[in-house]
Amino acid sequence: MTASTETTAAAPAPAPAVPTVDGAGPASREAVLATAERARVAARALAQVSGAVRNAALLAMAAALRAQQADVLAANAQDVAAAEAAGTGPALVDRLRLTPSRIEAMAGGLQTLIGLPDPIGQVVRGSVLPNGLQLTQVRVPLGVVAMIYEARPNVTVDAAGIALKSGNAALLRGSGSAFRSNRVLVDILQAAAESAGLPADSVQLVPGTDRASVTHLMTARGLVDVIIPRGGAGLIQTVVNHSTVPVLETGVGNCHVYVDESADLEMALDILVNSKARRPSVCNAAETLLVHRDIAASFVPSAVRALQAVGVTVHADPAVLEIAGVIGAAGDDASLVPAVVPATAEDFDTEYLSLDIAAAVVDDLDAAVEHITAHGTGHTEAIVTGSLAAAQRFTAGVDAAAVMVNASTAFTDGGEFGFGAEIGISTQKLHARGPMGLPELTSTKYVVTGTGQTRSAS
Amino acid sequence: MTASTETTAAAPAPAPAVPTVDGAGPASREAVLATAERARVAARALAQVSGAVRNAALLAMAAALRAQQADVLAANAQDVAAAEAAGTGPALVDRLRLTPSRIEAMAGGLQTLIGLPDPIGQVVRGSVLPNGLQLTQVRVPLGVVAMIYEARPNVTVDAAGIALKSGNAALLRGSGSAFRSNRVLVDILQAAAESAGLPADSVQLVPGTDRASVTHLMTARGLVDVIIPRGGAGLIQTVVNHSTVPVLETGVGNCHVYVDESADLEMALDILVNSKARRPSVCNAAETLLVHRDIAASFVPSAVRALQAVGVTVHADPAVLEIAGVIGAAGDDASLVPAVVPATAEDFDTEYLSLDIAAAVVDDLDAAVEHITAHGTGHTEAIVTGSLAAAQRFTAGVDAAAVMVNASTAFTDGGEFGFGAEIGISTQKLHARGPMGLPELTSTKYVVTGTGQTRSAS
Repeated sequence: MTASTETTAAAPAPAPAVPTVDGAGPASREAVLATAERARVAARALAQVSGAVRNAALLAMAAALRAQQADVLAANAQDVAAAEAAGTGPALVDRLRLTPSRIEAMAGGLQTLIGLPDPIGQVVRGSVLPNGLQLTQVRVPLGVVAMIYEARPNVTVDAAGIALKSGNAALLRGSGSAFRSNRVLVDILQAAAESAGLPADSVQLVPGTDRASVTHLMTARGLVDVIIPRGGAGLIQTVVNHSTVPVLETGVGNCHVYVDESADLEMALDILVNSKARRPSVCNAAETLLVHRDIAASFVPSAVRALQAVGVTVHADPAVLEIAGVIGAAGDDASLVPAVVPATAEDFDTEYLSLDIAAAVVDDLDAAVEHITAHGTGHTEAIVTGSLAAAQRFTAGVDAAAVMVNASTAFTDGGEFGFGAEIGISTQKLHARGPMGLPELTSTKYVVTGTGQTRSAS
Repeated sequence: MTASTETTAAAPAPAPAVPTVDGAGPASREAVLATAERARVAARALAQVSGAVRNAALLAMAAALRAQQADVLAANAQDVAAAEAAGTGPALVDRLRLTPSRIEAMAGGLQTLIGLPDPIGQVVRGSVLPNGLQLTQVRVPLGVVAMIYEARPNVTVDAAGIALKSGNAALLRGSGSAFRSNRVLVDILQAAAESAGLPADSVQLVPGTDRASVTHLMTARGLVDVIIPRGGAGLIQTVVNHSTVPVLETGVGNCHVYVDESADLEMALDILVNSKARRPSVCNAAETLLVHRDIAASFVPSAVRALQAVGVTVHADPAVLEIAGVIGAAGDDASLVPAVVPATAEDFDTEYLSLDIAAAVVDDLDAAVEHITAHGTGHTEAIVTGSLAAAQRFTAGVDAAAVMVNASTAFTDGGEFGFGAEIGISTQKLHARGPMGLPELTSTKYVVTGTGQTRSAS
């Protein structure tokens, strides 16, 4: 599938980590564009394939993954060995590693998609115009969807499945460290898709493991309809700044929990701890606690204790430091000292993704909204309050994909929202905002049916 | 409002056409970003303003335009005189010129917006999740909407009105030739908006009439939420290629009328002539005629005659040339010779926007779809057919914002679709496709209301 000739010609010295796999190493612009062009042709065919055939392909893909599990594990073992030999840290190696249960989860994910409503062909709006024209706006695939992502090979299967379910051709660009795994996974998915009657090019791995190949993909405007970067802030920023293809920006979350003066403090503790510590590495985890001044004296000490109990370090502003009793000398609570440290200015702009949280006392709800406006990333913001007016002002004043009232930030998730599948969480305002499900991978087309109507001159 | 100090510092030699107007000439990046920053602050306030107040502002703006008509006409007369002195052609000067009736149309347009449904706060979806969380997705403003447009000053008022109605702050960048007119119009709109309780910065003219100021605007990512270029293909391409702010691409339409073998030929003639000649300068005008081979002999001669009767030149492929009888010598129809000329390859990729049309004979419907796939711009494509199966295959096979069955391409229009207002016609697939009304200038926000729910660990 990949244009190995061009690759070889353009790249006499492939990257050492992935020396012998077809398509690894640098890829020429021509090779990347040729792949995108094939995706475009496949997308045109896919747009006319029935939901039943797309579902049959998903079933075949799930079965093929299970049947060829040994091939996947063997390729993945090579990736893991190469990563370990290159001194990659254990956390990243763990994300790279596939196991029989992880492969089963990937296959199960594909099967889950089969049961979800087909977004393609849904009528978004429709009416009969005064002149008798019948107007319908129907969902159609976007066309060619490119995903750029980091170490986890399960994204390869998830992304391919979601793209196909929504009638799109998938161009997949994982990280070089997972190239062998991704190569085998895509080969399996392609063969299965083809066996079910889809074009083999419905799912393709983008050739190349070098940075330039990503640039080629990002600038394939006209061939690629949308690029979705999934990964760290650096990857996302690179794509946003350099892509001429439209981007669906996902993921960076500097999420806040604001505890209002009228909050039920037990509820606030539960929500705070769950928002921060349930899974600190995900984008919907809370990174900053804001406490209304009038309840700070009663809430801050218990909050600090509760966070300390789950291993969280609090990066505290002077007011929180003082209330927590860890400044000064006599009478200070020395047991809190390692768990509470003074915050720097950067702390309030940091997406820790770890067992750390910034904390500040604010004068009132308006000050909380102002802090969030200055430091938030528009992902998820939560208020804990007993006041309806406060809830209304907070939800209206905070500009974010999701606003939680008396609920954990952890609920910003396609699965929790009932979407059945999630491509990522958009933090941009155009096209899709918040968790993206299948409809977010579609566009629309107006179909206007008449009986010979023409438009008057005026 | 505009940062005249920086402008002067950065630009010792302002453009001769607009020498003395505040904000004309080159603008520094700082001046443009400061304007955008003020828009951002205004947008935050606007997002919390009720629909009643926004409507009151629209009414005040309409009244102020009427009351200060003389100021507008005086400024516009200067723009017109400068354009004429600079040798601008009469068509462009006409687009630049304002008259009492054009000003009244602008005021009337603002009042029409008042009666349209407020998109802000509309609930797009809502449900109660299994854990009791109440989930609603509500429409919110995009924030700061920038428009870049060419000569017509009426766009200044239209764009400001549509942005305000949908709760957005407007950043307006018209052409240098209309700067005096736009300056006065925006001053009037700002004062009226402020009198109705909106921030004056809800509507702003972007400082600068140089190209660099457009670049500053296009790269104000984080301050500007969306840029909408309205104008020729060159302007749109420049914005698409250089903007880091998300773009809503509008307008280029290489639209086709395909006459199927089963077409009612009288109907086809009406639709063809209306699609081409009703208003040749607009993006929904037809630029290519495709005729099924089996009816070409009967349809082409009457089509050519009908087009000739309204002054259209047909750029014909060899098959059309032959059927029209304008090739060869004896027996050829000399009366058609000036109206039918041989097509070059470029003709089929040309958006004429004039009384010209390309014409070709195709073997069948599939060939028509293939031609459109190769040459179309995804705007509007029409089929004239008596066959339901042909209509279905054409609407499914053609990838465009709008597909017309037995109706003129001229119907792709926000007004005709019943939207009440139109910002432009999107030819991209992300966010909005086809005519864009008020909802297309909004984003959404998920509001999740609970009673203390936390998410389980798994």
